[in-house]
Amino acid sequence: MPKTLGPPDEVTAGYFARIEAQNPALNAFLDLDTENALAAARASTARFAAGAPLSAIDGMAIGVKANIAVAGLPWHAGIGAYRSRIATEDAACVAQLRAAGAIILGTLNMHEAALGATNDNEVFGRCHNPHRHGFTPGGSSGGSAAAVAAGLCAAALGTDTMGSVRIPAAYCGVFGHMPAFGTISAEGIVPLSWTLDHVGILARTSADIEAVLSVLSPAPVRTGKNIAVLDLAGRTEVDDSVTTAFAATVEKARAAGFTTTRIDLPEYDPAAMRRICLLIAEAEACVTHEKAMSANPDGFSEPLRAMLGWAARQPAPKLASAYRQLALTGAKIQAALAPFDALLTPATGTPAFPFEVAAPVGQGDFTVIANIAHLEATAFPIGTTTDGLPLSAQFLSSAPGQTLLLATALTQH
Amino acid sequence: MPKTLGPPDEVTAGYFARIEAQNPALNAFLDLDTENALAAARASTARFAAGAPLSAIDGMAIGVKANIAVAGLPWHAGIGAYRSRIATEDAACVAQLRAAGAIILGTLNMHEAALGATNDNEVFGRCHNPHRHGFTPGGSSGGSAAAVAAGLCAAALGTDTMGSVRIPAAYCGVFGHMPAFGTISAEGIVPLSWTLDHVGILARTSADIEAVLSVLSPAPVRTGKNIAVLDLAGRTEVDDSVTTAFAATVEKARAAGFTTTRIDLPEYDPAAMRRICLLIAEAEACVTHEKAMSANPDGFSEPLRAMLGWAARQPAPKLASAYRQLALTGAKIQAALAPFDALLTPATGTPAFPFEVAAPVGQGDFTVIANIAHLEATAFPIGTTTDGLPLSAQFLSSAPGQTLLLATALTQH
Repeated sequence: MPKTLGPPDEVTAGYFARIEAQNPALNAFLDLDTENALAAARASTARFAAGAPLSAIDGMAIGVKANIAVAGLPWHAGIGAYRSRIATEDAACVAQLRAAGAIILGTLNMHEAALGATNDNEVFGRCHNPHRHGFTPGGSSGGSAAAVAAGLCAAALGTDTMGSVRIPAAYCGVFGHMPAFGTISAEGIVPLSWTLDHVGILARTSADIEAVLSVLSPAPVRTGKNIAVLDLAGRTEVDDSVTTAFAATVEKARAAGFTTTRIDLPEYDPAAMRRICLLIAEAEACVTHEKAMSANPDGFSEPLRAMLGWAARQPAPKLASAYRQLALTGAKIQAALAPFDALLTPATGTPAFPFEVAAPVGQGDFTVIANIAHLEATAFPIGTTTDGLPLSAQFLSSAPGQTLLLATALTQH
Repeated sequence: MPKTLGPPDEVTAGYFARIEAQNPALNAFLDLDTENALAAARASTARFAAGAPLSAIDGMAIGVKANIAVAGLPWHAGIGAYRSRIATEDAACVAQLRAAGAIILGTLNMHEAALGATNDNEVFGRCHNPHRHGFTPGGSSGGSAAAVAAGLCAAALGTDTMGSVRIPAAYCGVFGHMPAFGTISAEGIVPLSWTLDHVGILARTSADIEAVLSVLSPAPVRTGKNIAVLDLAGRTEVDDSVTTAFAATVEKARAAGFTTTRIDLPEYDPAAMRRICLLIAEAEACVTHEKAMSANPDGFSEPLRAMLGWAARQPAPKLASAYRQLALTGAKIQAALAPFDALLTPATGTPAFPFEVAAPVGQGDFTVIANIAHLEATAFPIGTTTDGLPLSAQFLSSAPGQTLLLATALTQH
């Protein structure tokens, strides 16, 4: 038996039952692959019965963000224009999980085109935060975080361009891990930005993420507990609830034997990098969606058309400069962090908010640091607001697996 | 004594005498640093007399392309707008050479902004090919190649974005070596394209290049003689003279014990990559020269203004796509060449031509392969046309120093 809850066929049937019960209100899963999943779960159960599971994730029930191809299911990246496109084969990462015995349950809601962090999707519907209906689960991997938090799957794949795995992980109170750029193949994934996109993993425990990582990325390297601490005070919007919980997390880190050094990271200008990364992501998204946009403009929401249209009107030298600034800033951040084993920051400046409230402009100001500087990152829960909304911090590091190890050490302390 | 011609002070005085005699007709050197050079040469002579030279290039007389900063000399990149700008310090690579005892003679003519390969410079005048007055020396490092070929210095620094070291080396019949991207620091160099620019070295012998490299880059790694051969037949303009000399070079390689395999490299589309690299270079040049262009438009030639103006009007997504195609094509070329120790191609499709003749559109079609795929490359002489114009081939490789070793082996065979 897997160390989890029971035989994979029973566990998987249990997940489908919970999906049936809870998904109508949450709208996290969009398409299910029930028959194949149940067949795979029976095969997994047989392997365990024979004492021969394939891997640490044999039998694990996994959901997949809708921009990642799952053979036989719609592959639309949350964009109406592609709603009837069916993936003919699995994305490389999905194929790896399946080959290791994982059970792929279906595809998950997301912010349209992965360009935004509320998952208020006009075509596929809002995905709600399991902690509070009517509140955003974050995004763009909102369905991934909501499904994991609500217990509709054991883990989920997401993608992260400026924070799209870690922002929803933070708002939904789960772990969100983004390996460094290029660690997990992007083959079979609708790109938002090939320069900034990362595949990432969400789960309720760091052990579950570790299990998925054991299949998708190299073994972790432990380096140490010499930690830089950054709160961007005064440079991005940070809620008092976040400040308080983050300060307690830093205290906890010290108590756990971490050396902590507060840094300001002046090399990083949140407002400037926000503009630069958005220009790059939107210009690259124009390339990806150019044909579909001109064939079927109504298949894209008005806000998305406006963003991509703006990028299409920007002059080439402005983009050349943006890539240059991205590379130079990334190198400067790496150099500033070189003396440390990892950087600890809040994952987001605020907890989840109602759909009716505009998203903070600096929603990705903490998370995007990793995308800029080619670092890996793990967001992890650090408690809740007084009224029960999850709060989160993240570790960033250039050492593979380091941030997950540190997040595990800190949350189990 | 250095193994060359005599004491550095006498040798350097000899170079200045040749410059005085020949440079008025060639117009290779633009500004000389006579007093400092002679003083440095005397110091070098003293070191040799004391039996303590600093390096393999102590006392070597070196010229520097005018986009590379030489403290105290004009630093204008061949652009009129910057003609009165004086460099306050040496570029990093010049400082390294000086610290190793090299004698910096002065700065060399170049194609305006390094964007073009004829060195027909409206402001600083044409630089002529030492093999035939009125013919282009190639470019953009035309002055570097002409000065070396005419014996006005022992070696010269150049820069290479799509072939700007190797094209003039080919037209002037000297060795031109471009280490892989990033090997030599670009600090203190006016960029044409930070994505494609490389610092390179020109000299009459591979031994002289080896000596300069011993100061600027890591020690070479010999890998082998398993060579791919590419002639781009039918895909770019290639003169019969080049075809014949190149075939003889391939024969010579076989006789010298090289294994040769003819490849087509369908991954590389010369016309498409020409457009892509030009867009990238011109868009990046817009960023570098934006301020000077708006403050002093007449400081830029009409053709250069037209090229940069065109780039400034291109939409950002077109450039995003260009960078993407560059990266994907580079990776495909690397993969195609992985089974081989190096690639052998002609350096250019034609020999030098009169200034009055338009440059072939595919002037850099062979050379740019290295810039795209992050390879090092060495162009080397392979004879002349029946009327005495130099012809050239090049090796490309991903192993540091490999191409210079192979070119040396082949030319000394």
